[in-house]
Amino acid sequence: MIRWDEPPEGPVLVLLDQTRLPAEEVELVCTDAPALVEAIRTLAVRGAPLLGIAGAYGVALAAVRGFDVDEAAAALAGARPTAVNLAVGVRRAQAAYRAALVGGGDQEQAAAAALAAARALHREDAEASARMAGHGLALLDELLPGGGHRILTHCNTGALVSGGEGTAFAVALAAHRTGKLRRLWVDETRPLLQGARLTAYEAARNEMAYTLLTDNAAGSLFAAGEVDAVLIGADRIAADGSVANKVGSYPLAVLARYHHVPFIVVAPLTTVDPDTPDGASIEVEQRAGHEVTEVTAPQVPVAGVEAGGGMPVAPLGTQAYNPAFDVTPPELVTAIVTEEGVVSPVTAEALAELCDRSRQVTI
Amino acid sequence: MIRWDEPPEGPVLVLLDQTRLPAEEVELVCTDAPALVEAIRTLAVRGAPLLGIAGAYGVALAAVRGFDVDEAAAALAGARPTAVNLAVGVRRAQAAYRAALVGGGDQEQAAAAALAAARALHREDAEASARMAGHGLALLDELLPGGGHRILTHCNTGALVSGGEGTAFAVALAAHRTGKLRRLWVDETRPLLQGARLTAYEAARNEMAYTLLTDNAAGSLFAAGEVDAVLIGADRIAADGSVANKVGSYPLAVLARYHHVPFIVVAPLTTVDPDTPDGASIEVEQRAGHEVTEVTAPQVPVAGVEAGGGMPVAPLGTQAYNPAFDVTPPELVTAIVTEEGVVSPVTAEALAELCDRSRQVTI
Repeated sequence: MIRWDEPPEGPVLVLLDQTRLPAEEVELVCTDAPALVEAIRTLAVRGAPLLGIAGAYGVALAAVRGFDVDEAAAALAGARPTAVNLAVGVRRAQAAYRAALVGGGDQEQAAAAALAAARALHREDAEASARMAGHGLALLDELLPGGGHRILTHCNTGALVSGGEGTAFAVALAAHRTGKLRRLWVDETRPLLQGARLTAYEAARNEMAYTLLTDNAAGSLFAAGEVDAVLIGADRIAADGSVANKVGSYPLAVLARYHHVPFIVVAPLTTVDPDTPDGASIEVEQRAGHEVTEVTAPQVPVAGVEAGGGMPVAPLGTQAYNPAFDVTPPELVTAIVTEEGVVSPVTAEALAELCDRSRQVTI
Repeated sequence: MIRWDEPPEGPVLVLLDQTRLPAEEVELVCTDAPALVEAIRTLAVRGAPLLGIAGAYGVALAAVRGFDVDEAAAALAGARPTAVNLAVGVRRAQAAYRAALVGGGDQEQAAAAALAAARALHREDAEASARMAGHGLALLDELLPGGGHRILTHCNTGALVSGGEGTAFAVALAAHRTGKLRRLWVDETRPLLQGARLTAYEAARNEMAYTLLTDNAAGSLFAAGEVDAVLIGADRIAADGSVANKVGSYPLAVLARYHHVPFIVVAPLTTVDPDTPDGASIEVEQRAGHEVTEVTAPQVPVAGVEAGGGMPVAPLGTQAYNPAFDVTPPELVTAIVTEEGVVSPVTAEALAELCDRSRQVTI
């Protein structure tokens, strides 16, 4: 859902504008890094793995078009503070650019190196997605022998946010393709409704059996024994295994524990940030209150309603608490599924070991 | 927020249309029971205690206007199956009507008896509200000495739904008036946003310190130690102490238990239904999926958008799971606060004892 294009006017980064879904499939064409920063901030492009790829391409775009690469990299990496993949992707392209210059390359060669790094990340992410799906499906088979899985997911973690088929959603899709998915329960994911708008869209496109619910209705499903596993993605995983993900993930983890249901996090190893020791150290992005005090439909042009303008639902002047993410401690996470294998139980040691092993393989 | 009026054209029941709040304060005038049934179904009038009062007045309205009283009573009682107060209010006015006829009264006298029963229920509810507020505040003082309460509430339980100042909200208001409320955390309460639209409106009117949040952000508040108590109302309490309340209450109960935070239910004794033995016996109303698959702003007239017409947020054909209520088992409820006192711990025996005592007092 992201594409590097080279029309005669010069190279561009083409994104599917996720704020328009499911009403319209509109492509957004970024000609420079500030346009991409804006797209990231407004969530036109979002989702952990895709942000990493977008960040890398953004650096390449600045380099190829002759802008200040370090300035672009700083702006891109800071566009969303909790998403570690974004910073990782940015750094990777920036490092390739610098290494080329240090190695005696000219500006053009350095830009080509940045682009090659972005493309490599894009390709690796697609491969990682396929491997996560395989490991995740094997884990489900082990935890829930017999199939007929009823999986609850939160937010959006499919092809829209990935170079491949995503993270948690890719596992559910693998279960669907092997006839093992009975039902995908899709949390609507307030305030921005990524579940209703995006996950339902991806589930419908893949002809999966899915049902949408308000986030707070998940409790009733657990109580009725209608959830066999929770599958979510992650925006950052601390060294101790604490998982920052879309707000609403933590309450699901507590419900899952109370009902003895596996709570499974699916994320590429780039999501693990060894520099963040624990959950308390994770910076959680606080977003604007109007996302809560106003409701916004997908940006369908409607006469009289300005595109993107929300309609107030709370009294004027109402203050809102609107964290983008919450943090689930490792003791509530049954397993973390990565492209290199599964960590379960989730401990700092097991996580570090997997990261080390992966690094050795890469080297 | 409900008024019996007798203009020259004949008696009417006047309601504040809650679907228009907070944008507009519009009164809805019902001239017969079917109009009231429609108002109840569309949630123009809603909330457990108010539904009881409305139901009783509805029977009186049918009687006074010479319609079939039993037919009206059946339609009113069935308008929302989970709300026990509605049926109780309806039965009370209907019983008064029948008793007057059996006692030799004419149609006019029987209608007057039904109206008197509705008025008595209205007055009693206001008194009950004040007593619940007193008992609830005393309980908070006991559980959380020192004041500075940060109270989380879900859905709407204030004056809008009561002959007085409500149930859970009345307790928070009492804390506010005595300088003990530090913060009222207001869950927005998807799908119909009663928290954002109504509770925030009542909190603002009473100049309380309040903050709105999406339902799924409550987890972060608990994790941060920002919630001292949860206060909610109830739509039906089974004989064993199981509490049916707005969907999203049960996840809060599980979170409260996990974080050792008191979970307090505030409801008049009419909410307790001795004929419902336990939580599994509570019929939970399933509402239309479009409440989830479309977003609806309060019915502000906007050019191009039909009043009340929602804007789709999910792909066409998306199926939704939309229970109006969930059920919290007694073991997760710290206390039930009624007008006759507090039940804690919540057991079938303690609840039955309080109901018996109250019945003796009434006789």
